[in-house]
Amino acid sequence: MKILSVNAGSSSLKFTLFEMPEEKELISGVFERIGIDNSFYSIKLNGDKIKKEIPLNNHKVAFEILVKELIDNNIINALEDIKGVGHRVAQGGAYFDASVLATPENLKIVEDLAPLAPLHNPPALTGVKAAMETFKDATQTLVFDTSFHQSIPKENYIYPVPYEWYTKYGVRRYGFHGTSHKYVYLRVNELLRKSDTKVITCHIGNGASISAVKNGICINTSMGLTPNAGLMMGTRCGDIDATVLTYMMKTTGMSAGEVENYLNKESGYLGVSGVSSDSRDIEDGIKNGDERCILAQDMYVNRIVDYIARYYVELGGIDAIVFTAGVGENAPDTRAKVINKLNILDIKLDENSNNTRGKEIKITTDDSKIPVYVIPTNEEVMIASDTYKMIK
Amino acid sequence: MKILSVNAGSSSLKFTLFEMPEEKELISGVFERIGIDNSFYSIKLNGDKIKKEIPLNNHKVAFEILVKELIDNNIINALEDIKGVGHRVAQGGAYFDASVLATPENLKIVEDLAPLAPLHNPPALTGVKAAMETFKDATQTLVFDTSFHQSIPKENYIYPVPYEWYTKYGVRRYGFHGTSHKYVYLRVNELLRKSDTKVITCHIGNGASISAVKNGICINTSMGLTPNAGLMMGTRCGDIDATVLTYMMKTTGMSAGEVENYLNKESGYLGVSGVSSDSRDIEDGIKNGDERCILAQDMYVNRIVDYIARYYVELGGIDAIVFTAGVGENAPDTRAKVINKLNILDIKLDENSNNTRGKEIKITTDDSKIPVYVIPTNEEVMIASDTYKMIK
Repeated sequence: MKILSVNAGSSSLKFTLFEMPEEKELISGVFERIGIDNSFYSIKLNGDKIKKEIPLNNHKVAFEILVKELIDNNIINALEDIKGVGHRVAQGGAYFDASVLATPENLKIVEDLAPLAPLHNPPALTGVKAAMETFKDATQTLVFDTSFHQSIPKENYIYPVPYEWYTKYGVRRYGFHGTSHKYVYLRVNELLRKSDTKVITCHIGNGASISAVKNGICINTSMGLTPNAGLMMGTRCGDIDATVLTYMMKTTGMSAGEVENYLNKESGYLGVSGVSSDSRDIEDGIKNGDERCILAQDMYVNRIVDYIARYYVELGGIDAIVFTAGVGENAPDTRAKVINKLNILDIKLDENSNNTRGKEIKITTDDSKIPVYVIPTNEEVMIASDTYKMIK
Repeated sequence: MKILSVNAGSSSLKFTLFEMPEEKELISGVFERIGIDNSFYSIKLNGDKIKKEIPLNNHKVAFEILVKELIDNNIINALEDIKGVGHRVAQGGAYFDASVLATPENLKIVEDLAPLAPLHNPPALTGVKAAMETFKDATQTLVFDTSFHQSIPKENYIYPVPYEWYTKYGVRRYGFHGTSHKYVYLRVNELLRKSDTKVITCHIGNGASISAVKNGICINTSMGLTPNAGLMMGTRCGDIDATVLTYMMKTTGMSAGEVENYLNKESGYLGVSGVSSDSRDIEDGIKNGDERCILAQDMYVNRIVDYIARYYVELGGIDAIVFTAGVGENAPDTRAKVINKLNILDIKLDENSNNTRGKEIKITTDDSKIPVYVIPTNEEVMIASDTYKMIK
């Protein structure tokens, strides 16, 4: 059965087509600059990558081009071959602790949650509507970045602010990257050959979060009400003294929107280094002795170590740590610095095995008290898998 | 030599007179509602407590009444017997890594730092000026809440926000309660009979902070730019997703000042429980099965545990943990809950010795891998001691 996994942004549309339940990736790609000038799409098929420039007025046009490509490349015979379309949705609030069918009621809830995810939920809905118009007979599903974290206990999701902010305005920890945390947790259990495990999952990409998972249940995560909490990220500050915001607003006259923009887009690696949000540029800067790049990485590493320390104690010891996502999969130096700071927990880096990028591997020595793994994430296959289960 | 230790608030004046270097407390007390109606003062002398109602137009009047009381009670013969006055100052910024003389230059810096401590530095200056007018021949000194934390390394005091916020506006971690952290650190070293120690000091009062100290040098602390960072407190939120502020401002139309007021005065224990900012009231609520009091204490305890876990790993293991200040000295239940959550670090509570209030004691068993102590803090004697050293 062919299932399409979709991640729609305001001007982009990422897709992967799977043969299920074999989880075989048939084709993947991305449409970019939808509704803007110079739009194009690129496709990965049988190891080749093709890029084509073409006007893309909206997401529906993108889906129609996708169908044509699938037929032209003999991946499907007809539109009807695609039985399911699974959509990534950032914010499911407290409403969804699992993936659901894209019913009118559920779509209405996603729409109502837009104030909590103004940059993400509206484009996701655009994607769902365009897919419904294109793939009229396919089962459409919603897979939330938040649902894996709905199991977090109340003392970990309530903030110590006026309680009415929670009951009236939904101010609480939601967490994000749930699909990725769940994927690597399930995979590490296969490697550990057990399921009653306590694992710290580190999704370290341009956005980054860490979760504490016990027996398949997420019990804490570093992102919060928004994806700008917890770790230091590419351009996001993560945890800071919240009063920095009001101090800067009062001192400079900035508005709430302006200061928020700085904290989301001009902070993190970019803000401290003044050079780049990309960890590869930071590592280049460090090689050239750039003091602010060195400072930025020290801060970045310390924040990851802090969360591992917290969750180690909160879980009462752990069976494994997993690194995934862009930096987690591809930055051996950053991983090494984190692990070397976990010395007191008897975690021992294997420098040779750590010196790899983008592949599944154990990066600690055999006498390390706790193993640390790199596991490439695959949110797309999780979305397809959840969709397949709902059709079956 | 008689040294007066002073802590001036906008409408209050706390004092303790010491005979130095014996560190003998001769008299202590507080003037309240200075410059308001119904002003009064209370004095503790030889175990007795006296309260008197009297008009107090300003801090100078308070000092003059104090001098009269000291002479009337035969504690001093004349004003000139007081050789030094040490003043507590909240915010010394990056300028002071130790106590200093109250020279015009230093007072100017304290004044310039007012935007970073609008509620604290101006009244401290009022206190210094009134004391200078009263005790004309005494040496006046400034003892900062921040100076013990000036040793914190840059990667721990810079925030991952635009770097210019640090260079232009002084946005960085300063930390507070430094005098208390230093006092209990020095005292626990006496109990441990060594000085090359790694200690986590927990100052848990209505305001609360935790520090990591190594060989006498503070390397990290939980408070930040302001005293509303880190732990959950009586009415302050501590660490939250900073974007909660902008979300609430955009959602409700609140100003920066209004949301800051909520986070400083209506959050923490008070905000979550809806009952009180006082841990004794929270414990009463828990006994009556109040769900929000239970929730509030679980959150409060978890935040302390989180910081101990972080600093344990950051210090690479520790020699001791110390609890001090109002809650730290007087709330056995809270201490027990914290220590029982540190199980994985082989820290073992001694329930009998923990069941005490306000006195110095070790509260872990002899086979606990790390000892935990309660040490009543004494910021006043630290202020007198620093002042005595500057005179000598």
